[in-house]
Amino acid sequence: MRPEPSTIVFLCHSPDRVGLVARITNFFANENLNILDLAQHTEDGRFFMRIVGREESARQDIRTWQAKFRAVAAELDMEYAFHDPMERPGVVMFCSKTLPCPMEIISRHLSNDLNISLLAIVSNHLEIAPIAEQLEIPFHHIPTVGDAHAFESRQLEVLQLLQPDLVVLARYMKILSEEFLRQVSAPIINIHHSFLPSFIGNDPYEQAYRRGVKLIGATAHFVTRELDEGPIIIQDVTRVNHRFSVADMKQLGSDIEKQVLASAVRKFVEHKVMQWQGRTIVFH
Amino acid sequence: MRPEPSTIVFLCHSPDRVGLVARITNFFANENLNILDLAQHTEDGRFFMRIVGREESARQDIRTWQAKFRAVAAELDMEYAFHDPMERPGVVMFCSKTLPCPMEIISRHLSNDLNISLLAIVSNHLEIAPIAEQLEIPFHHIPTVGDAHAFESRQLEVLQLLQPDLVVLARYMKILSEEFLRQVSAPIINIHHSFLPSFIGNDPYEQAYRRGVKLIGATAHFVTRELDEGPIIIQDVTRVNHRFSVADMKQLGSDIEKQVLASAVRKFVEHKVMQWQGRTIVFH
Amino acid sequence: MRPEPSTIVFLCHSPDRVGLVARITNFFANENLNILDLAQHTEDGRFFMRIVGREESARQDIRTWQAKFRAVAAELDMEYAFHDPMERPGVVMFCSKTLPCPMEIISRHLSNDLNISLLAIVSNHLEIAPIAEQLEIPFHHIPTVGDAHAFESRQLEVLQLLQPDLVVLARYMKILSEEFLRQVSAPIINIHHSFLPSFIGNDPYEQAYRRGVKLIGATAHFVTRELDEGPIIIQDVTRVNHRFSVADMKQLGSDIEKQVLASAVRKFVEHKVMQWQGRTIVFH
Amino acid sequence: MRPEPSTIVFLCHSPDRVGLVARITNFFANENLNILDLAQHTEDGRFFMRIVGREESARQDIRTWQAKFRAVAAELDMEYAFHDPMERPGVVMFCSKTLPCPMEIISRHLSNDLNISLLAIVSNHLEIAPIAEQLEIPFHHIPTVGDAHAFESRQLEVLQLLQPDLVVLARYMKILSEEFLRQVSAPIINIHHSFLPSFIGNDPYEQAYRRGVKLIGATAHFVTRELDEGPIIIQDVTRVNHRFSVADMKQLGSDIEKQVLASAVRKFVEHKVMQWQGRTIVFH
Repeated sequence: MRPEPSTIVFLCHSPDRVGLVARITNFFANENLNILDLAQHTEDGRFFMRIVGREESARQDIRTWQAKFRAVAAELDMEYAFHDPMERPGVVMFCSKTLPCPMEIISRHLSNDLNISLLAIVSNHLEIAPIAEQLEIPFHHIPTVGDAHAFESRQLEVLQLLQPDLVVLARYMKILSEEFLRQVSAPIINIHHSFLPSFIGNDPYEQAYRRGVKLIGATAHFVTRELDEGPIIIQDVTRVNHRFSVADMKQLGSDIEKQVLASAVRKFVEHKVMQWQGRTIVFH
Repeated sequence: MRPEPSTIVFLCHSPDRVGLVARITNFFANENLNILDLAQHTEDGRFFMRIVGREESARQDIRTWQAKFRAVAAELDMEYAFHDPMERPGVVMFCSKTLPCPMEIISRHLSNDLNISLLAIVSNHLEIAPIAEQLEIPFHHIPTVGDAHAFESRQLEVLQLLQPDLVVLARYMKILSEEFLRQVSAPIINIHHSFLPSFIGNDPYEQAYRRGVKLIGATAHFVTRELDEGPIIIQDVTRVNHRFSVADMKQLGSDIEKQVLASAVRKFVEHKVMQWQGRTIVFH
Repeated sequence: MRPEPSTIVFLCHSPDRVGLVARITNFFANENLNILDLAQHTEDGRFFMRIVGREESARQDIRTWQAKFRAVAAELDMEYAFHDPMERPGVVMFCSKTLPCPMEIISRHLSNDLNISLLAIVSNHLEIAPIAEQLEIPFHHIPTVGDAHAFESRQLEVLQLLQPDLVVLARYMKILSEEFLRQVSAPIINIHHSFLPSFIGNDPYEQAYRRGVKLIGATAHFVTRELDEGPIIIQDVTRVNHRFSVADMKQLGSDIEKQVLASAVRKFVEHKVMQWQGRTIVFH
Repeated sequence: MRPEPSTIVFLCHSPDRVGLVARITNFFANENLNILDLAQHTEDGRFFMRIVGREESARQDIRTWQAKFRAVAAELDMEYAFHDPMERPGVVMFCSKTLPCPMEIISRHLSNDLNISLLAIVSNHLEIAPIAEQLEIPFHHIPTVGDAHAFESRQLEVLQLLQPDLVVLARYMKILSEEFLRQVSAPIINIHHSFLPSFIGNDPYEQAYRRGVKLIGATAHFVTRELDEGPIIIQDVTRVNHRFSVADMKQLGSDIEKQVLASAVRKFVEHKVMQWQGRTIVFH
C-alpha cells in the first residue's frame, strides 16, 4: 500500500495471551481509527502486530499517538511504535568500488521509487564520486589509510553529524568492528553477495563456481557483531549453469544483489520489518 | 499451519466500518479463544477476515460456534463460516486421458500430503481406470456417448450421490454446460494449461509456441459459466526458450499444472480461499 | 561470456542439411579459429548457429572475416554476420514520464554493466531532462505537438543523424506508425508492461487487477508493425496477490520491466538474438 | 526433445584444441547423420559435447557406432559414448518413511512421463510397501537390523542381481559407506532437502528455521564418498517467510524436493548429464 496522508503505521510486540487483538483494536476503535490493514504473527509465545489505520476524525501527530497508547502498552508488557508513512527516513549509504548496488539506490531515489531522504554517500574509494557530484548528493571520501580506529572514527563522525534512521551498506567491502557497531544507533542493512548461509566470507562467487551450484543469490540482512550472521530480511536467487564463469556469475549476481537490497530498504522504509531473536518478521 | 485438534477456522466478509476487528475479536476473547493467526483484507469497502484460533477452555463443536456468532453477524451484516481443520473435505475428481494432474492428486492423497477424502474419480476415458482399481479408489467411467444432456445427467447422478465438498477437474477435457453448473452446489476447481488470460480455449501450448513466449504456465481457477473466466486461485510459470517444441512445452507444462492444481486444492482444503466479484482472496 | 580482444562472434542461418556444421567448422579450423562456444538450433528445416571463437593466429578484422566466408555462405544459401564483441553498439533511447526503465539503462551504462554507447535520449516529456543533463547524455525533447507526421519527422531526423545500431523504447508511450517503422533501419526493442499476450494495449496493470491474476510480468520484444505483436525476446513475472492495488502492481511491475528490458538489451548487444518468422532465437 | 526412433545421442569429452568440432562433425557427415542438436562446452581446457543426430541412411545399432568412432576418439584422446534414446534405463529406487519423493518417481513412471524401467524399490521401512504391492513394482524390505556390513551386503545383492543403470535415493535416510559405494558401479542420484551447501547433514529444515532464511530448497546430486559433497545436478528453491514453522517448511519443501529429484532423473535418462572435477555439465 502506498503512503497516504492521514494514515499511521503501528508496530508492536509482547507476550501472547488471549484477548490481545481485542484489547489493541478496541483502543483504535475508540480513537476512531479505521484499520486498513492488520498483519499479525505469533511465534514461541511472542505476539507481533502491524496495523495501518486511517484517522477518520481529526489528525493526531505521532507523539500524541505514542503518548496515548502508553497505558495500554504498560498493561500488556508491550513494546510499540507509531510511524507517519509520509515521513522520509534519512539514509546514509556506504559503498566501495562496485557500482550496481549503490547506483540502484540512487536511481530509485531519483525516480521517487524509494521513499527516502538520501543524506550522504560514504566510500573508501572514488568510483562513485563523479556520479554523486553530478547528482548533488553529499559525498564523503574516507579512504582506508592509517590505523583502523582512526578510519572508523571518521565514519562515526559522519553518522553522528547526520543522524540517519538507516545505514545501507551497498557492497561496502570493509568489516565493521564491534566497537563501531556499538556506537551506531541506527539499524544497518547489508547486502551479501551470496545466498546465506552458503558461502560466507570472501569471494562467494568463486566458492559458488567451485562447488558447482545451479543457483546463485543474494541476501539483505541486518548487521550484527557476528559477520554474515545478522537477521535475514530478503533473499533471492537466479539460475546459473555450467556455462557461467566466475565473471558471468558476478555480473548476473549483481542484478540480484541490487534488487534484493532495494527491496529490503523499501520494506524497512515502509515499517514492515521487525527483529526477534536472530530472525526477522517481514510483513507483506 | 498444520491442522491441530482444538483449533477452529473462522472466515467472514462484510461491509467495512470502524471497529469491526475489535467487535469480532472481543467476541472471541469472551469465548476464551486464543487467536493463533489473523489475516484481514479490505477492498472497495468490503472487509474480509480469516482467523485460526485455539479453544483454551472446553471444545465447542462447529455448529455451536456457528450459532453463537449469529447475533454478531446480524449486527454487522456479515457472512461467515466456522470450520474444523481436522475434518477432511470430500472430493470428486474428474479427468480424461492426461494423467500427470490426476496422478498428483492421488499421490498426495496417498502420502497424506493433502487433507482430503477422495470419494471418487470420474472419467470419460479409461486411462486412469487400472490405477484407480489397484488403489481401490471408486471409479466411474462416463463415456462421451449419446446426447450431451444424457452424458451430463450421469455425471450429476454421481455428484448427487456423493455430495462432495469440492469437485476437481484435473485436466478434464469436456466443457460443462451452464445447466450442469447450476445444479452442482459444490465449488469446482479447474486447472487450465496456460497462464490465463493468455491462450484461452484449445491448444494453449500450440498457441504459446507460435507466439514465441518465453514462459509457459498454468492457472487453477473456480469454474463459472464463462469458459476460462472464473476467479483465479493460483498461477505459476516456468521458463522456456526457442528450443522447446510443442511436445516439450506440454511435458514441462504438466509439471507446473500439477503443482498449481495441488496447491489450489490445498488452499481450498485449508479454508484459505474466498471469492468476491470475480477475484479471489487467498490468505497465506 | 565477457567480451575479450581476439574473439569474434559469428551468427548464421540457412536451410538445414546433413554436413552443415562440419562445413562451417572446417572453415574456421582452416582459419585457426578456436571455437570457444557453439550454439545451434534447428526449427522447421531452418538451421541457426552462433559461434564465439578465438583467433589463435593473427587478428583479422570483421570485414576480412565477412569477405572470406562469402563463398561458403553462397554455397550453403546462408545469411551470416561477424561481430567484434569489443565494439559498443550505439543506442538511442526513447522514454516518456515513467523513469525506472530509462534510469536502469542509464545506470547500467554508467556502471559499465551494459556494453553500449548511449548516443542520445529522446523524450516527449521533460522528466528525464535534468538527469540527462547532469550526466551529460545528449537529450532531445520532441514534444507531442502539431500533427503526427511532423512529430515523427523530428524523431526520424535524430535517428538519421545518429545512426544507432539499436533503438530502445524504455516505456515510451507513443505508438509508432508503419511509415515511421519503415524508415528506421535499426532494430527497435520495446518493453511492454505485461506478460504478453495477456493484456495488450493500454493499462495492463488495471486489466491485471480486474482479472485477478496472481502473477504480473513484463515483455521485451522487437517492434513490428502490429502493436504488441513483435517477436518476444525476454519475459519475466513476479507474484502478486489480492492485497496488491493497481498502484502496488505498477510499483512492483516496474522492477520486472526494468530487469527484463536491460536483459534484452544485453542479449542483443552480445549478438545472441536472432529473429525468424515472428519468433526469436535467444542463445544462452 | 522427445526421443524418436532413428535418432542417436553422442556424448564426449577430451582436451580442447582447434578443429575439434570439425573433426567430429565430419565423421558424422560422412555417416550421413543429420545433427538435430549440438551442445558444446569448454572449461579449463577440457572440451565437452553432446550431439543428437538422425540417421538419414540405414539404422546402425549403438555398438556399431561405438566401434566406428573408436579411431577418431583415439586420435583426439577422447572419451565418448553413444546411446539409443528409445532404450529405457533400468532404475532401482531406495526410500525410507517419507513418501512424496518416491511417489513422484512412481507416479511419473506410471504416467509415462519418465522414460525409465523401474526395476525395484528398496526400503528400510514399510511405508511404501502397500503401494509398491498394489502397483506390482518389485519391493525389497531391507530393515536396518544387525551390523551395518550385513545390512549393506543385502542391498548390494539386490543391485548385483538387477544391474541397474541408475540408483535413485528418494529421501533414503541411511548414509552409504565408502565400501558400499566402491562396489556399486551404477551412478547414484540423491535428493538432499536443502539448498546445498547450506545446511548439510541432518535436519536442514530445522537449521533453516533457526537461521531465518527466506528461501528453502532442494538439491539433486551424484553421491560420492564425501557426504553431501557430490556434484550437483539440479537445485531449486521456494520462498518462505516468518510465518512458516518447521513443519510448514517440510511440507512445502517436499514439493521442491520431488520436482528437483524428478528433473535430475529425467536429465540423466536423456543422457544430458556429464561429470567433471566435482561439477556437472547439464546440457539443456
